[in-house]
Amino acid sequence: MAENRRFILQRRPSGTPTAEDFALVSEPLPELADGQFLIRNHYASLDPAMRGWMDDAPSYMPPIPLGTPVRASTVGEIVASKSAEFPVGAWVSGLNAIEEYSIGMAGGFSQIVDISIVPSPTNFLSVLGAVGMTAYFGYLEVCQPKPGDVVLVSGAAGAVGSLVGQIARIKGASKIIGIAGGPEKCARLIERYGYDAAIDYRGKSVDQLTAAIAAEAPDGVNAIFENVGGDILDAELNNLAMHARIGLCGLISEYNNPGEKTGARNIWQLIVKRATMQGLLVADYVPRFGEGITEMAGWLREGRLVFDEHVDEGIDNALPAFLRLFSGTNDGKMILKLS
Amino acid sequence: MAENRRFILQRRPSGTPTAEDFALVSEPLPELADGQFLIRNHYASLDPAMRGWMDDAPSYMPPIPLGTPVRASTVGEIVASKSAEFPVGAWVSGLNAIEEYSIGMAGGFSQIVDISIVPSPTNFLSVLGAVGMTAYFGYLEVCQPKPGDVVLVSGAAGAVGSLVGQIARIKGASKIIGIAGGPEKCARLIERYGYDAAIDYRGKSVDQLTAAIAAEAPDGVNAIFENVGGDILDAELNNLAMHARIGLCGLISEYNNPGEKTGARNIWQLIVKRATMQGLLVADYVPRFGEGITEMAGWLREGRLVFDEHVDEGIDNALPAFLRLFSGTNDGKMILKLS
Repeated sequence: MAENRRFILQRRPSGTPTAEDFALVSEPLPELADGQFLIRNHYASLDPAMRGWMDDAPSYMPPIPLGTPVRASTVGEIVASKSAEFPVGAWVSGLNAIEEYSIGMAGGFSQIVDISIVPSPTNFLSVLGAVGMTAYFGYLEVCQPKPGDVVLVSGAAGAVGSLVGQIARIKGASKIIGIAGGPEKCARLIERYGYDAAIDYRGKSVDQLTAAIAAEAPDGVNAIFENVGGDILDAELNNLAMHARIGLCGLISEYNNPGEKTGARNIWQLIVKRATMQGLLVADYVPRFGEGITEMAGWLREGRLVFDEHVDEGIDNALPAFLRLFSGTNDGKMILKLS
Repeated sequence: MAENRRFILQRRPSGTPTAEDFALVSEPLPELADGQFLIRNHYASLDPAMRGWMDDAPSYMPPIPLGTPVRASTVGEIVASKSAEFPVGAWVSGLNAIEEYSIGMAGGFSQIVDISIVPSPTNFLSVLGAVGMTAYFGYLEVCQPKPGDVVLVSGAAGAVGSLVGQIARIKGASKIIGIAGGPEKCARLIERYGYDAAIDYRGKSVDQLTAAIAAEAPDGVNAIFENVGGDILDAELNNLAMHARIGLCGLISEYNNPGEKTGARNIWQLIVKRATMQGLLVADYVPRFGEGITEMAGWLREGRLVFDEHVDEGIDNALPAFLRLFSGTNDGKMILKLS
């Protein structure tokens, strides 16, 4: 156990990341200082937001420093400890990196989790992790749902979007429309996640997307949970109901685009419909995660919530596994098994 | 009085309106029906929003039909009436058109105004009209001011922007920054409207504008009142404080642009700063205009509010007067004298 394999960012990607941007290195484990503990990472979460952390641009977190492992949420087991609060044998989740071992410390980003309450420890990286909490707090706090709402979710087959649609149902939406890429994902929206309608964005212009949304929501959309941006957001803006609320969670269509950002070309419609677009970040709700986990776990037990995980194996598969998020070839929350 | 000169929209402008898009016609006055009254329009308000009404595009109001006079707010005197509520001799303001006479009706858009309380009837088209109410309700309801805010206003020397800066001062902003075009307007922001800082956007790239704002607001901007859009909005988005509120009032930089809209390229920053961008339209606050007029009139009496009007004369000057709004050659709220 003296060696730790780590997935290092060695160059900032331009556009879609390539193998040359990373290096898999093996380093000896450092000694633990007082208050620290050693986590054997069993699973790492792969999320679109990580692409932004690789850029040297102002954001809500500092960029990943070159020469350090790629920042990621992980779940793992404590295998050595100099902290009484974090004993050997306990499982923790937290913001660490794609590496076999991480050093945690009391007062840092690690939280002890009770893996006996879930079928798999990976669930703390999906439905009960940041992804689940993004869907829960983003929809409830930013989209401000009202019974009878017509709700639209982009990236609807993704880890967050598939949960948002189900939470919207629980909270009384009258119609839930999902946008996803390809007929298989669209079928899954309806058959598995309970969406009322699915729109395949592939091959559609902004005008065609605008018409497709209008056909499903002739009186406009009351709440939008936006994960994608670009043409999809522009088409959504053409279909707002009066006083619509747009929760801006992500802009995955822009993350690998090194040129000028598309942004939102149709913000004029915010004036026309006196609508609100608000950015959201799950980090703001960390103090309330207990509340979210309790309610989501209850819905899971009642069978009102389903979720999917896509687990790829091996730290040497980190890059192809991460790139699935952008090609859309994952079937559920993307997770990398490290043990 | 049998003839009524009217400024007719005869073709939809592409880009900046030209003389060929309009016609000045003289038509006989129709007979009044029961409940109607005839208004001699003394003044018409010229506003950037009118450019949008000339396009055949979905908006918050139907497009001006071709062959009809250009829609505008006016103030005038009732010269004939078949309505007991609107007697001859009363002055009214309301949404009419650029024409010498308009027909009003009870239950329509006309409101009787008391011109004895103001130095000029034109004030009901500026500080106590839609422009003043846009500044008042837009800033208070959408920008949600908090004492100590750093406030940024674009189009700050304009009819609305010059009032927003002063209302921000009254409501306890700690620093008020205005963006305007040219050194004369920038000087007027500080000397006449009480802004703390003025930024001349002319000749500046998005990066240069971003730096200019950052120099005045190193900790970011808490509230933005946006009238312009385009590069200015992009630079503002680069300077948000956490939880900033953006009131989207207008996008004058786009109104004469027939191509693809710029929109807001940097909406990623809404996520980074968990900020809110909300569209506003003064029409929503018509039921509360009395409240706004009372408070604004009080500030006027106390000498806490100054305003400017730019009156051009004659219906045959309607087009050049209107185009001043886009070239920025007006010095105050643009008004056309029709009598």
